[in-house]
Amino acid sequence: MTSVDRWQLPDGIEEVLPAQAATVEQLRRRLLDMFRSWGYELVIPPLVEFTDSLLSGLGQDLDLLTFKLTDQLSGRSMGVRADITPQVARIDAHSLAPQGVSRLCYAGSTLHTRPKSLMASRSPIQLGAELYGDDSLAADVEVIRLMLATLDEAGLQPSCTLDLGHVGIYEAVLASADLNAEQEAVIFDCLQRKSVPDLMQALDEVPEDIATLIIGLVDLHGDDEVLAAARELFADRAPEALAAVDELQDVATDIRRQRPDLPVYFDLAELRGYHYHTGIVFAAYVPGHGQALANGGRYNGVGEVFGRSRPATGFATDLKALMGLLPAGDAGQGAISMPDVDDTELLARVEELRQAGEIVINNLGGEHDSRCDRELVESGGNWEVQDL
Amino acid sequence: MTSVDRWQLPDGIEEVLPAQAATVEQLRRRLLDMFRSWGYELVIPPLVEFTDSLLSGLGQDLDLLTFKLTDQLSGRSMGVRADITPQVARIDAHSLAPQGVSRLCYAGSTLHTRPKSLMASRSPIQLGAELYGDDSLAADVEVIRLMLATLDEAGLQPSCTLDLGHVGIYEAVLASADLNAEQEAVIFDCLQRKSVPDLMQALDEVPEDIATLIIGLVDLHGDDEVLAAARELFADRAPEALAAVDELQDVATDIRRQRPDLPVYFDLAELRGYHYHTGIVFAAYVPGHGQALANGGRYNGVGEVFGRSRPATGFATDLKALMGLLPAGDAGQGAISMPDVDDTELLARVEELRQAGEIVINNLGGEHDSRCDRELVESGGNWEVQDL
Repeated sequence: MTSVDRWQLPDGIEEVLPAQAATVEQLRRRLLDMFRSWGYELVIPPLVEFTDSLLSGLGQDLDLLTFKLTDQLSGRSMGVRADITPQVARIDAHSLAPQGVSRLCYAGSTLHTRPKSLMASRSPIQLGAELYGDDSLAADVEVIRLMLATLDEAGLQPSCTLDLGHVGIYEAVLASADLNAEQEAVIFDCLQRKSVPDLMQALDEVPEDIATLIIGLVDLHGDDEVLAAARELFADRAPEALAAVDELQDVATDIRRQRPDLPVYFDLAELRGYHYHTGIVFAAYVPGHGQALANGGRYNGVGEVFGRSRPATGFATDLKALMGLLPAGDAGQGAISMPDVDDTELLARVEELRQAGEIVINNLGGEHDSRCDRELVESGGNWEVQDL
Repeated sequence: MTSVDRWQLPDGIEEVLPAQAATVEQLRRRLLDMFRSWGYELVIPPLVEFTDSLLSGLGQDLDLLTFKLTDQLSGRSMGVRADITPQVARIDAHSLAPQGVSRLCYAGSTLHTRPKSLMASRSPIQLGAELYGDDSLAADVEVIRLMLATLDEAGLQPSCTLDLGHVGIYEAVLASADLNAEQEAVIFDCLQRKSVPDLMQALDEVPEDIATLIIGLVDLHGDDEVLAAARELFADRAPEALAAVDELQDVATDIRRQRPDLPVYFDLAELRGYHYHTGIVFAAYVPGHGQALANGGRYNGVGEVFGRSRPATGFATDLKALMGLLPAGDAGQGAISMPDVDDTELLARVEELRQAGEIVINNLGGEHDSRCDRELVESGGNWEVQDL
């Protein structure tokens, strides 16, 4: 490898340069401050953990996404976190082990072996919030509202749509069928891809009424009429699914009460995170951006592998993805050049200017930094800021 | 592995829980804001890079500290960053490639295969600043002043001491000897450990005047008398070292002019980072903390492997190490409980309180969060904050 390509970064692994980095940092601060004002407390989980912790319980979907390392001190397998949610669940279940409701939030880099979708980053800066210890729809509604407030704060909300789903619907349909594990896996794969031809082939040996139910799921996406259609479809053949349909209706009603103009779509075949989600799942989209900008859902029982089962719901977003949708920052504030001399008055003046938010750059006895539009000049024993 | 030990973290891999996380976050913001006010622009390098980039040039010392991964997309070797400085050097040399001086800063998690010293974290949160494109002592002085201002901001400065060294001194001594690579490696190791018996054995076959010089280095640590002793020792036998001694004197004078009470120690056998440092090296210590709290130095030519050689100097610290020395934060601000009702007036009041810095927590139709010391109560059509 020659010097000319030593600067290459791996595909999907991005650096953030000054103009954008300042935007990301400001957004990160505003969002963490907002989370705090809603009662969510910051935690900072480590970059790596033993895979036994990181991939237990809700983490099994993440196995293939996770880079593995061998810990030289213990000889055990560690993973670089591909998702921060399992870490926060461990912190809630074990490190904090609170009575009652707890609210936690976080922001940090994660790493994926492969992009989760075409064009996705392999090194998102994941920022999210989790609510533990409350199994009510009120908790789901709070977390969805916080997700929408996050996109407000990022300036993206006016164009957002909210997608709602419920893992309980697919579970009820599955429970009414009698499939073996292999059949379930194939059908799950077809449903995720929403491929009806593959699905019909996979359902070849499944009783016709069950097959109709499962194929019916694929079309159950759209506005409120979807819920009516679902009630009709499930009434006789999978009545356990009806409670989930009611929950979807209730959550949508609550969300709309505060945001009557927000487009809400239902997707009853939405199975993202199915292996660990247990109830309402949700995602926010903006036009022209194929992936969800933020998403989450309920994942009860997540603490069980850490010895403490807890109801849980939460959401996450990727600061890098948000950054890509934000308008470019301004050209940057001007700066003040200071001469490289040791003068008590000068230093006091510089300190004062910096405290007031100005950028003051030492000229190191040479040229002014290109960002400088003013300079500190001595005049009659005083240091004055003058235009350059 | 049973559920009871799934929560274990690997040795030296720490999580930061709410009380301390808030402190770390506030310190992180204050320090990045200060760097910005000095003209240092934030960059966000990725968690991993190809080892060809990460370990080139100044990174070779880091090889053993760096966890390696295989990139599934390219088949090439990647490393999880053990140090952010090489990444920032790459960004300066290639991604930004500015004319003239550039100042960059960063804050992010790093990972070490082994602790750098007994009790050290393997997952520091590295925060630092780098100054490129200026080879003057004024640049070294600026970076040392910024490092000291960092410890001021963290509230640690009053008890700090500053250690100064200069890689040019050992280089001049080596140049005057005629050692093979193996001899150099053994002597380097003995010097790092400051083990005189091992050093004397290693110098057994080295001409006596050279051996005297090298052994002399071990004792050259202490106050200003060290510089006088060094001049005497090197005058005839390694005169190239005298310029480095002069530089140390000049830097100490400049630093003392603004901080006359700061204890400054010289350590002429200080070889930390010797393989990439090229001039003045420095570190800050506080009593009772064996490792340097912050350290850095000059590392010219660092961009060479990326096609662009640049003078460089910078420093870094570990937010987790600083956190450990800070007084415990206060018990935390109280919070306001809000009822889980949809009332336009209530929501407006909550928004107003949150914007004003209050924490307002939805009671989800159940109990108040334990942090709440006040609640929102409707009274005559208005929502009022009342003590709980």
